[in-house]
Amino acid sequence: MKDLAIQFGFNLRKKRKELGMSQDKLALLAEIDRSYGGRIERGEVNITLEKAYQLAEVLECDVRELLP
Amino acid sequence: MKDLAIQFGFNLRKKRKELGMSQDKLALLAEIDRSYGGRIERGEVNITLEKAYQLAEVLECDVRELLP
Repeated sequence: MKDLAIQFGFNLRKKRKELGMSQDKLALLAEIDRSYGGRIERGEVNITLEKAYQLAEVLECDVRELLP
Repeated sequence: MKDLAIQFGFNLRKKRKELGMSQDKLALLAEIDRSYGGRIERGEVNITLEKAYQLAEVLECDVRELLP
């Protein structure tokens, strides 16, 4: 199941970069700690559904786009 | 965000019933506690992405079908 977090993190980073958004800004808007944001992008965290939706909202995309 | 868990739980229960699967069996196959399974269906738990995928796998559906 570790692949899941890695794939989610990869998709999240890709989407964030597409928008030209910094990790700092994403963290600020999603109300998460900056280091936690980095850990999510590296697939080190098994995040909750709620957090996934929150990140998708900040990136103005459907959460399905971020899922593996 | 509570709505999210409620909607996920609703979809999960609906899918489980469509398959004629008991809560016990779902819990057993998804390797979760039976009471925890009930709490998920009632939307009382903010589950992780990993758990959502695990439940979708047991119900032989795409996790996207269970998402709000």
